Amino acid sequence: MTPSQPTAILLVSCPDQRGIVAALSAFITQHNGNIIALDQYVDSEESAFFARMEWELDGFAFPLEQFAARFEPVARPRRIEWRLHLSDRRLRMAVMVSRQAHCLYDILARWESGEWPIELSLVLSNHDDHRGLVERHGLPFHHIPVEAATKAEAEDRQIALLKQANVDFIVLARYMQILGPSFVQTFPMRILNIHHSFLPAFAGAHPYRAAHDRGVKIIGATAHFVTEKLDEGPIIEQDVIRVSHRQGVDDLVRLGRDLEKIVLSRAIYWHVHHRILVYKNRTVVFS
Amino acid sequence: MTPSQPTAILLVSCPDQRGIVAALSAFITQHNGNIIALDQYVDSEESAFFARMEWELDGFAFPLEQFAARFEPVARPRRIEWRLHLSDRRLRMAVMVSRQAHCLYDILARWESGEWPIELSLVLSNHDDHRGLVERHGLPFHHIPVEAATKAEAEDRQIALLKQANVDFIVLARYMQILGPSFVQTFPMRILNIHHSFLPAFAGAHPYRAAHDRGVKIIGATAHFVTEKLDEGPIIEQDVIRVSHRQGVDDLVRLGRDLEKIVLSRAIYWHVHHRILVYKNRTVVFS
Amino acid sequence: MTPSQPTAILLVSCPDQRGIVAALSAFITQHNGNIIALDQYVDSEESAFFARMEWELDGFAFPLEQFAARFEPVARPRRIEWRLHLSDRRLRMAVMVSRQAHCLYDILARWESGEWPIELSLVLSNHDDHRGLVERHGLPFHHIPVEAATKAEAEDRQIALLKQANVDFIVLARYMQILGPSFVQTFPMRILNIHHSFLPAFAGAHPYRAAHDRGVKIIGATAHFVTEKLDEGPIIEQDVIRVSHRQGVDDLVRLGRDLEKIVLSRAIYWHVHHRILVYKNRTVVFS
Amino acid sequence: MTPSQPTAILLVSCPDQRGIVAALSAFITQHNGNIIALDQYVDSEESAFFARMEWELDGFAFPLEQFAARFEPVARPRRIEWRLHLSDRRLRMAVMVSRQAHCLYDILARWESGEWPIELSLVLSNHDDHRGLVERHGLPFHHIPVEAATKAEAEDRQIALLKQANVDFIVLARYMQILGPSFVQTFPMRILNIHHSFLPAFAGAHPYRAAHDRGVKIIGATAHFVTEKLDEGPIIEQDVIRVSHRQGVDDLVRLGRDLEKIVLSRAIYWHVHHRILVYKNRTVVFS
Repeated sequence: MTPSQPTAILLVSCPDQRGIVAALSAFITQHNGNIIALDQYVDSEESAFFARMEWELDGFAFPLEQFAARFEPVARPRRIEWRLHLSDRRLRMAVMVSRQAHCLYDILARWESGEWPIELSLVLSNHDDHRGLVERHGLPFHHIPVEAATKAEAEDRQIALLKQANVDFIVLARYMQILGPSFVQTFPMRILNIHHSFLPAFAGAHPYRAAHDRGVKIIGATAHFVTEKLDEGPIIEQDVIRVSHRQGVDDLVRLGRDLEKIVLSRAIYWHVHHRILVYKNRTVVFS
Repeated sequence: MTPSQPTAILLVSCPDQRGIVAALSAFITQHNGNIIALDQYVDSEESAFFARMEWELDGFAFPLEQFAARFEPVARPRRIEWRLHLSDRRLRMAVMVSRQAHCLYDILARWESGEWPIELSLVLSNHDDHRGLVERHGLPFHHIPVEAATKAEAEDRQIALLKQANVDFIVLARYMQILGPSFVQTFPMRILNIHHSFLPAFAGAHPYRAAHDRGVKIIGATAHFVTEKLDEGPIIEQDVIRVSHRQGVDDLVRLGRDLEKIVLSRAIYWHVHHRILVYKNRTVVFS
Repeated sequence: MTPSQPTAILLVSCPDQRGIVAALSAFITQHNGNIIALDQYVDSEESAFFARMEWELDGFAFPLEQFAARFEPVARPRRIEWRLHLSDRRLRMAVMVSRQAHCLYDILARWESGEWPIELSLVLSNHDDHRGLVERHGLPFHHIPVEAATKAEAEDRQIALLKQANVDFIVLARYMQILGPSFVQTFPMRILNIHHSFLPAFAGAHPYRAAHDRGVKIIGATAHFVTEKLDEGPIIEQDVIRVSHRQGVDDLVRLGRDLEKIVLSRAIYWHVHHRILVYKNRTVVFS
Repeated sequence: MTPSQPTAILLVSCPDQRGIVAALSAFITQHNGNIIALDQYVDSEESAFFARMEWELDGFAFPLEQFAARFEPVARPRRIEWRLHLSDRRLRMAVMVSRQAHCLYDILARWESGEWPIELSLVLSNHDDHRGLVERHGLPFHHIPVEAATKAEAEDRQIALLKQANVDFIVLARYMQILGPSFVQTFPMRILNIHHSFLPAFAGAHPYRAAHDRGVKIIGATAHFVTEKLDEGPIIEQDVIRVSHRQGVDDLVRLGRDLEKIVLSRAIYWHVHHRILVYKNRTVVFS
């Protein structure tokens, strides 16, 4: 459930060790924070500890600007890596899209309905097709053509626009271009992509065609963070739908569209609620 | 993951309150217990707190016989209700079955394969059909016919056998008799039933026929604790399978058998690993 | 797969009888129709036969205006009930909606993307909230308030508008009013509703609250034809999503929205492609 | 629904062509066969036609020994390939298994319960572990060790036993050896395997480990016909289950066991009811 009062959200990862939960929860409690959610997970194979703690800010003992300094004595000896988020600080999101619009439609509808606590900053596309759709929502739309010869330059323009808009993260809503390393490195673990297959099956181009030719009985979609290796970034969410021999490639495309929308929207939901931790190319999702 | 060393498992429920996680985790940590799993859940609507803590017994500061006394100063002021389990104390399970044997087969296979940390104490049936199946596994089988006139007497015999075998819980593996109040009260929240529908739809007799006649497109099965109200006890697990107009009642029965086996086996798994808490006729399952 | 050439679609139901498939397929073939899809189903319990035949019109031996007369010698002795549809005659659809807009957004996006072969004729609502959303798509929006005292009058206005727009069918996209008998009788098996539960569980108002209170582990949505009995019409499609104790009512509402959209859209897809037959309050869906 | 009277089942594949359904159904009807099921499918991309027709033998105009000759005038000009099966001729099945017994248990239970119309002829294993389990069911068990040096010889012994038992098809119930080409060629499209992943993802050894390391959110199992290319044969059935970061490899193995049993059993069901056609390394399953 979404709390109605402002909260702080602390994401923690560190080597597993005795007393880590007690230390974390004691720190918040001693500073008069009311913990409303604590999710923790120990990867015993890796001896790694992960947690998400959320507490009400009302009555908390010190302003969060001091958090780093105050938390230091807890964090340093335990080699804790952490990130702190505020529930009332709305993330700024950009969308990149190509010709297929179903994910864009879905995102715009959720945004307009206030389903997510975000600012939708801008939409970038390598085609001009969806300018009208985006602009009728009162949102900036930038058409930046991408071709082999000019790709680096185009990415520079994209990066400039994204930085200028001060975006927190980027959603590739069926953006059909491969992002270059410098783009990816500019926004590490801040680019969410939807791939239209059940990864790692059918990575790369034309997954529905490939799925059809292989004769699978279930197709899927995968939301993942983008890394420099194509379709190999940490998986955030996947879902599937049953198909049969009766479905041609066109049918897979049609059925897959709904999967893609749903899977991508779940990944965005978790991302904007700070429920995802990444390690070793996998995700911990405190859903 | 199942820990390989003996652990203690503490199930806790209490009113939600500041500092409850810190207090619980500090208690274990201060007594040198290494917490390997902590699941907690706050029902904010009910202001209720639930937790499951599991820690390694190796090196723990005091023998568990003293737990109640030692934990008292933590528990009493916070109105904590708790249960303590040991991972290396195998629960004793009884199975009750009628004519349909698919769940019984499944349970016997899992038991023989060592899938669950249980002792399978005995099998009771109101029919003699499956004596051979049970006895070839080296297990006691008791045939206790149940008829309207002799039902109370039959239940007394059943209760006597179950008590004599010192069973911890009872699995109704498609046992097609309604248990009387005194039976149910003898084993509160210790009787698991599998109902062959997606409850609350199609409670009572002949759910597959009823599902077919209503023309549903998905059928289900439900594992729940047995209470005095038929098919209304706390739901532990449910699962479903898609059907179409093509499936007649016979097909639903056939497809449903697999659902029933799987759903019941998951409920048993969670029960024997002490992962289920009940409140307000609902379950918290720390799966 | 959707054929690219115009086709005729014949929906047939009749008592099961020897030679019925041969008679139907011979009729089309003898008149030079190339059958591209033939789905048939025999309900052996009811001795009822159902079929959907689709054939290419190119080269067919006679114009379809003569179909009734030509088919009569086949149909009458076999007591065949039939409906004939043309794939290139786009159905005219109306949408009725209340305050919740997620299904409306979804329908508008699919319509604008050309996902369905329909004309979207008009949107009716008992609230004025979504006028802007609808009108920016260039579609007529009518706000007809519905209150107990004026309900009959309001329905008369609705019916008048729907008839004037010459609609073929009506989609209740979370329209939160119960339609009166005369409305329902005016559009028999031509009103599709989405109910936000896995029917027959949780019919009526507040199904997510009821599902939460019962503690189910899976929630669902149901698309069905509207009949005079509330939430008891023939089910077209259902789907479900797994939930746990962690989801409060708000979460069920949120997760359910996506289910509702998908389930309703599948029902519309089958309806506009003439893939649904109704009998005995059930549907045959040749999906 | 399973018919109670003996039926004939004709599986047909041929180039798509006008009048093919009419020709097939007319042939049966003219010979006084009552068609109780007709499933057909046109792969328009391949211009290929597939059908399964089932009719009651009672009253059929000629004995089935004459079928080939009588059907010839229909089949030859249309280049029809066909197979004819009798519902009351029980297929003879062999099972091959290694150390993991869960699929074997499941198969034995279904066999003993009469769930499938089969004879279970024998069980082969490269280990002796499950001799007791098999023999207590009154079934022949053969332990044939397989090692690199003696593999060809071992397969010769296996083939000899299978031929001697006159088996119709072979189920690899987690048989962890790769079959050589001569074995596979001896039983073309008559060997069913269960692979413990959602193919084509994680083909080869240790799929659960690979799935865990990739961080997928859903795992699967795949039943397929065995061809000479490992894990690349035509897929018959797949199913999946949702997992999360919380599941270690051991948990995936445990959860996967249930998937494997169910998926394999569905494939066997369809195979023994003659519902599967293979073409272009894909299956048409008239389920």
